[in-house]
Amino acid sequence: MAKGDTVERIKLVIEYDGTAFSGYQIQPGKRTIQGELEEALRLVYGVSVPTFASGRTDKGVHALGAVVHYDEPKKLKNPRLDEVISSHLPSDVRVISFERVNESFDARFNAKKKTYMYRFYLSKAERPLMLNRSLRVDDRVNVELMREGAKYLIGEHDFRSFVARKSGKTNFVRTIYDARIEELGGGEYAFYITGNGFLYNMVRIIMGTLINVGLKKIKPAGVKSIIEAKDRTKAGKTVDASGLYLLNVDYE
Amino acid sequence: MAKGDTVERIKLVIEYDGTAFSGYQIQPGKRTIQGELEEALRLVYGVSVPTFASGRTDKGVHALGAVVHYDEPKKLKNPRLDEVISSHLPSDVRVISFERVNESFDARFNAKKKTYMYRFYLSKAERPLMLNRSLRVDDRVNVELMREGAKYLIGEHDFRSFVARKSGKTNFVRTIYDARIEELGGGEYAFYITGNGFLYNMVRIIMGTLINVGLKKIKPAGVKSIIEAKDRTKAGKTVDASGLYLLNVDYE
Repeated sequence: MAKGDTVERIKLVIEYDGTAFSGYQIQPGKRTIQGELEEALRLVYGVSVPTFASGRTDKGVHALGAVVHYDEPKKLKNPRLDEVISSHLPSDVRVISFERVNESFDARFNAKKKTYMYRFYLSKAERPLMLNRSLRVDDRVNVELMREGAKYLIGEHDFRSFVARKSGKTNFVRTIYDARIEELGGGEYAFYITGNGFLYNMVRIIMGTLINVGLKKIKPAGVKSIIEAKDRTKAGKTVDASGLYLLNVDYE
Repeated sequence: MAKGDTVERIKLVIEYDGTAFSGYQIQPGKRTIQGELEEALRLVYGVSVPTFASGRTDKGVHALGAVVHYDEPKKLKNPRLDEVISSHLPSDVRVISFERVNESFDARFNAKKKTYMYRFYLSKAERPLMLNRSLRVDDRVNVELMREGAKYLIGEHDFRSFVARKSGKTNFVRTIYDARIEELGGGEYAFYITGNGFLYNMVRIIMGTLINVGLKKIKPAGVKSIIEAKDRTKAGKTVDASGLYLLNVDYE
C-alpha cells in the first residue's frame, strides 16, 4: 500500500442463485461464490483480496442479501464499486450494494440477526418454473397447522434436535425472533425465520418438521416436544437446499 | 384404432420454463415444447399423436397454463394421464392437469380469453435470481404512471401500433378486458393483461410502451394516442421475452 493511504473497509451485499455453485465457501477445483467473488476482486484491484462473509451457505442455497467485508488494497478511480465488481462476476452472482464502513465492522462477528426464507408450493406435480427455486409439497398439506407449529420456534431454545449430526458445534442455544408463513400467490408460500444465528442445516430440518405438522404426522405442539427432546431423530428430514434463501443479515 | 373404441379428446394444461426452448412450435433440429410433448405422447401411446395448442409462444417465453388438445389413439391402463405423460417429459415441461373433453373442443379455436403476465423488477443492477424470469427496469421508473397508462389499453381497439412488422395478420382489432399492475414484493411487479387474442409480440411491445410511460418519456394518456396512431414506430420497443408468461386460457 502506498504511503498516506488509509485502509478502507468495504461492506458488500450480494445476491446469488446457488443452483450452479458448490456452496459459498472457497474449495479447490469447485465453483463457489467466494471463489468467484475473490477472482472478481483480484481483477478489480490487481492483487489478491481476502473476503469475510456473514456466513456460509450450502450447495444449492440462494441469497438475496448475503454480506461480505474486505479491506480495499487501493482506491479505485470509479467510485461505483458495486458496478465495477459485478462487471467481473458471472451472471448468477451480483453485488447489490456497497458501503464504506468503520474498520471495526466484521460481517461475521457483528451480525446480530439473520433472516432466511424457505419457499414451497403445494402441488400434486413438480412445476417447471419452481425448479431449483421452491420445494414441492403434497397439496394435502395444511398450511394453517404449519403456521401454528412455527410459533413454538420463537424464543431462546436449545435447537439440538434441529442440527445435522456432522455439525462440530457444542452450543446449540439460539434465539428465534420471528417464524411465520406468508402466501406468495399461485399456490406458493414462504416460511420466514429470523434468529441471532442458525446451526448447520437448522432451517432445512425445521422446514421438514413443519411439513410433518402440515401432513398431520405430528401436532403443532409437537414442535415444542421435539425442541425439548434435544434429539435429532425426533425432528423431520432435512429438506432440499434449493428452496432456501438467505434473505438478509442485520447489524447494529 | 380397434373396433368399438370411441375417440376421446384430451385437454392438457401445461407449464414450462421457456428458457432452454426455441419457442413452442415444432421445428426440425430445434428443442421446442411441442417437440418434447409429441415425443412424450409417442412414448406413451406407441404411435405419433398430433397436438393442437391454444397458441404458440416465442423463444424464451414461459407458460403457467398453456392448453393443448389431442385425440387419444387408444385407452391407457393408467388413468392418471398427467403423471404418465410428465414421466416422459424433461423437467422444464410438465402436464399440470388433464380433462376428457367433448370432441368439438378445440384448444385454439374455442379459446375465448387469454391472460399474460409480464414480470419486471426495479433495480440499478441485474439480479441473479431474476435472470430469465423477470425484466430489470431502471429503478427511477414510476409504477403509478404505468398503472394509469395501462388503463387506456382496456376495450376494443385496433392494435396495429403494437404488432411486430413481420406479422402476417390483416385484422388488428382485439378486445382487452383487463390490464393492471400488481406488486409481487421484493421490488418486483407483474403486469397482467387479459384479452380475446393477442397479436405477434403485442404484450412485449405494450410492456416497452408502459416502461416509457414510467420513465416519463410519454404521458399515461400517450398510450391512447399511440393506439390511435396505428403506427408501430410510435410505440415502445419490444422488451425481452424472458419476463413473459402465458398465465391461462379461458374457454366457455
